Amino acid sequence: MKNVKTINFRNIGDESGYLTPIEAERDIPFGIKRVYYITGVRSGERRGFHSHRDLHQLLICVSGSVKILVKTPFEEKIIILDKPYEGLYIGPMIWREMFDFSEGSALVVLASEHYSEDDYIRDYPQYEKEAREYWSKRS
Amino acid sequence: MKNVKTINFRNIGDESGYLTPIEAERDIPFGIKRVYYITGVRSGERRGFHSHRDLHQLLICVSGSVKILVKTPFEEKIIILDKPYEGLYIGPMIWREMFDFSEGSALVVLASEHYSEDDYIRDYPQYEKEAREYWSKRS
Repeated sequence: MKNVKTINFRNIGDESGYLTPIEAERDIPFGIKRVYYITGVRSGERRGFHSHRDLHQLLICVSGSVKILVKTPFEEKIIILDKPYEGLYIGPMIWREMFDFSEGSALVVLASEHYSEDDYIRDYPQYEKEAREYWSKRS
Repeated sequence: MKNVKTINFRNIGDESGYLTPIEAERDIPFGIKRVYYITGVRSGERRGFHSHRDLHQLLICVSGSVKILVKTPFEEKIIILDKPYEGLYIGPMIWREMFDFSEGSALVVLASEHYSEDDYIRDYPQYEKEAREYWSKRS
């Protein structure tokens, strides 16, 4: 699926503890201007429901597990994140929803730009329209 | 204590889930070139035992809790990190040790530079010598 890929990072250590390093612009294809994390999500909650026009992001579930739905007008896929050393890269124009957060889970997101509301598409029909145009130029 | 401070971030949400955003060079006093996280630490393990010469870091315990000892030749302090919206900034020339990781805890660290072994001081007597010189220029 274009603009979506899983990345396996190094996982340095042994059963006494692990360290996972991510070097900006080396281990991931962008510089990091923003980090955010989602915690304390109640069972049954579903989050996301948007796409970004230009933003690049990397999602890592550093504790517990979560499912990520990634979707375009042409295909969709569900990825389970449950290993701290496994990241999910999501590029521009991908609709995403997050669900099945396990109790105590923590989802960390690295983003290529500072927060900008203008970069969000939160309405699915609007997303579909822009996405068809975006992807028609790239197929 | 100089070069050490706790920073409280926004914690957006309610009992259905929280999002904590950290904007590089805005919410923290540096740009982010590296992110790493420490997970799966066995009870009783103590980590760290080093200082950095120039690196700026921010530590956040996004799941569970951990204690951080920060130390100079002149003073020391133990900080408990147990809230996802509370960060600990550690600047240059601070000796640090991490311990009492709770089961399932995840400690996320944002760093101002890519990994460089030359920036580490791992020997305490060597740290003490360099730190006395560093701090004598800044008192």
